[in-house]
Amino acid sequence: MTAPLMDVDLGHHLFSRLYEIGFDGRGMTRPSYGREENFAHALFMGVAGQYGLEVRRDWASNLYLTLPGRDRTLPVVMTGSHLDTVPCGGNFDGAAGAVAGLLVLCAWVKAGFRPERDTTLIVTRAEESVWFPLSYLGSRTAFGLLEPSALETPRSDDGLSLRHHMQDCGASPDLCGKASVLDAAKIDCFVELHIEQGPVLLEADVPVGIVTGICGSTRYRSAVIHGQYAHSGATPRCFRSDAVMAGASMMTALHEAWKQAEADGEEMTLTFGVCRTDEAQANFAAVPGKLDLVIDIRSRDEALLERVNGLVIQQARRVEQDYHVRVELGPRTCSTPAVMNADLQADAKIIATSLNIPFVSMSSGAGHDAAIFALQNVPTGMLFVRNSNGSHNPDESMEMDDFMEGVRLLECLLRRRAVSVS
Amino acid sequence: MTAPLMDVDLGHHLFSRLYEIGFDGRGMTRPSYGREENFAHALFMGVAGQYGLEVRRDWASNLYLTLPGRDRTLPVVMTGSHLDTVPCGGNFDGAAGAVAGLLVLCAWVKAGFRPERDTTLIVTRAEESVWFPLSYLGSRTAFGLLEPSALETPRSDDGLSLRHHMQDCGASPDLCGKASVLDAAKIDCFVELHIEQGPVLLEADVPVGIVTGICGSTRYRSAVIHGQYAHSGATPRCFRSDAVMAGASMMTALHEAWKQAEADGEEMTLTFGVCRTDEAQANFAAVPGKLDLVIDIRSRDEALLERVNGLVIQQARRVEQDYHVRVELGPRTCSTPAVMNADLQADAKIIATSLNIPFVSMSSGAGHDAAIFALQNVPTGMLFVRNSNGSHNPDESMEMDDFMEGVRLLECLLRRRAVSVS
Repeated sequence: MTAPLMDVDLGHHLFSRLYEIGFDGRGMTRPSYGREENFAHALFMGVAGQYGLEVRRDWASNLYLTLPGRDRTLPVVMTGSHLDTVPCGGNFDGAAGAVAGLLVLCAWVKAGFRPERDTTLIVTRAEESVWFPLSYLGSRTAFGLLEPSALETPRSDDGLSLRHHMQDCGASPDLCGKASVLDAAKIDCFVELHIEQGPVLLEADVPVGIVTGICGSTRYRSAVIHGQYAHSGATPRCFRSDAVMAGASMMTALHEAWKQAEADGEEMTLTFGVCRTDEAQANFAAVPGKLDLVIDIRSRDEALLERVNGLVIQQARRVEQDYHVRVELGPRTCSTPAVMNADLQADAKIIATSLNIPFVSMSSGAGHDAAIFALQNVPTGMLFVRNSNGSHNPDESMEMDDFMEGVRLLECLLRRRAVSVS
Repeated sequence: MTAPLMDVDLGHHLFSRLYEIGFDGRGMTRPSYGREENFAHALFMGVAGQYGLEVRRDWASNLYLTLPGRDRTLPVVMTGSHLDTVPCGGNFDGAAGAVAGLLVLCAWVKAGFRPERDTTLIVTRAEESVWFPLSYLGSRTAFGLLEPSALETPRSDDGLSLRHHMQDCGASPDLCGKASVLDAAKIDCFVELHIEQGPVLLEADVPVGIVTGICGSTRYRSAVIHGQYAHSGATPRCFRSDAVMAGASMMTALHEAWKQAEADGEEMTLTFGVCRTDEAQANFAAVPGKLDLVIDIRSRDEALLERVNGLVIQQARRVEQDYHVRVELGPRTCSTPAVMNADLQADAKIIATSLNIPFVSMSSGAGHDAAIFALQNVPTGMLFVRNSNGSHNPDESMEMDDFMEGVRLLECLLRRRAVSVS
């Protein structure tokens, strides 16, 4: 058969509806297990209904839209992504993959194409762990990997629990640990399309990236440096416990270590995304007595993550001595690096070449739902689409032409798996 | 005559009433030209009325409580301080000097002592420039040094103008530049008692300090480092514009310069009291695109202030290059160092020795209303009282015994000037 025609108008429609749903006055805000995420899921259910796809939700309100295959006992071909955003984010992180999957299934329906295998778009919940400090929450629940105790985790904006927000979204948190979940053995493959979120494709001037692996992370989301507020003019340096100076020294030293790691050919990132003195007490006339820090380290190399984590602890101890402060790093959260399936990568390259779509192979510095599928030993692939201005900000932007190239590649890759019964 | 007896109970009463007025649940908050400052002024007016002192307010609602002298044409002896606090500050910064002055005048009334010269306690407004970014606002208005355009300055907490807040306090801002003001030639001397706000007297184990001079300052209260928000995992170091890393590097370099200046025997302080990523946009998954900084440099040496200011600008330009950011230092505000009167210092030392009050001579790192009097060429002195835990924080504390030693010294010093007609 020739490739079914992808409906670019449907793509435009979905992105503009998602924009209307998420617009906060400046960017996109669709919180995990929030009202705007619900609206976005409802939008997808509506379109799926019009095209006659099977619609299902699991206990955690992840959404499954399925085009049934000829043999429904065969392992399923899956694609998907998420529809929540960070606060004041963009309209394409997550949404691109969910829209791409729906365009593929709708095109297949319209073309009268019936795959051998069930082909399912999963729209996950709560991928953006800025709301709940749990990586890939939705795909983890889909595989039964959520500890019931995690249901009491408060959401960062309103302090209400995950349980509360799940119930608000019609999910059944009481089924956590009891409900049936995805079985990796019954999944043929999972392929996620996603915007790149970085400048690599732009710099390389190609529309599509084929992902080799996904970075793991080590994070301290609630580190605090405790010093002592004191009069800024009347307190000599030797008597100070300056939380900001201690933090600056620690960050500068770790930044130097990163530069050194790069010079040694190692790949990682190190980010202090939040760095904040106290709103109520800090002022220009006082030595700052408190600094909140959020630390995010990422790498595909687990040993390097451990090594940098050791450096963080060592620098914390050093500034405690040098600046008379106390550093509470707080809980450490981790995610494991994930390798993408070699066959899927090879197939993707062949297809891209035959469709005349320029591409590069690259790793993903960002985490994705695909990491969970890969770590569950599902053969997993990822496709990146070029976009400008990074992501997690309102200026995130993706050319529709680039997106449609990605969708064509995704369609072919899924079709190749969906028709193969070997 | 023997020294009039100071009423320690009145002191206790005034401090505990001020505490009740200012308590915000954690510390003292009596904003400049705010409700709590008004209550505190009313408290002083009430007591002054009971003791038969003359009560007067100027156009800016500074308060003058006067015990008339025998010859009312002679230059006046003055003492005083302020009753506003920083947000969540302590109960003694400012208040100690105002209470001390009132204890002296009340003791004189009670003892039937009539000085040769008018002796006036000035309770200034708005000394804490955290509310309005104007140093020593109250004492400056008292000398007619406020530009009418400054009346439009917004207060940092609510954004309402100085004019608005003055009017709310019964002041007449329209008289700015027109009303009669203090004339330095008609002031014999000004002596301010104040808590030390630093650890020098504690370390030296003496209750009282005699001040040699008051530091000037250079400040940037609204510096901003502008970077570019970007995905923390997907953005390689070379493509980043990381506002926090730029800030950390700048602060660390300036801290090193301070250490070097100290090693060279120079006296200064350098404080980044506020250091804050954006509440709405910053999160653990994004390279931070914005950092607010507040910079405060103090020294008795004006040339050093200029040199350090040059370093700040140089470091700002350096991190712009190194971190691909834009540094907006914003408006610079300055105050001039002030020297204390040598005769008053000498008198204070003789009196302290004769009263058997241990003391040290020391400079003031903090700014005070006394600086304005000194810069207007009024013979000016300052007495420090030992206190724990610095100031500008709720834990600021002063022993009543130390305070009363300071009041005894102040009383004698003022009496010596008030009876002298030469």
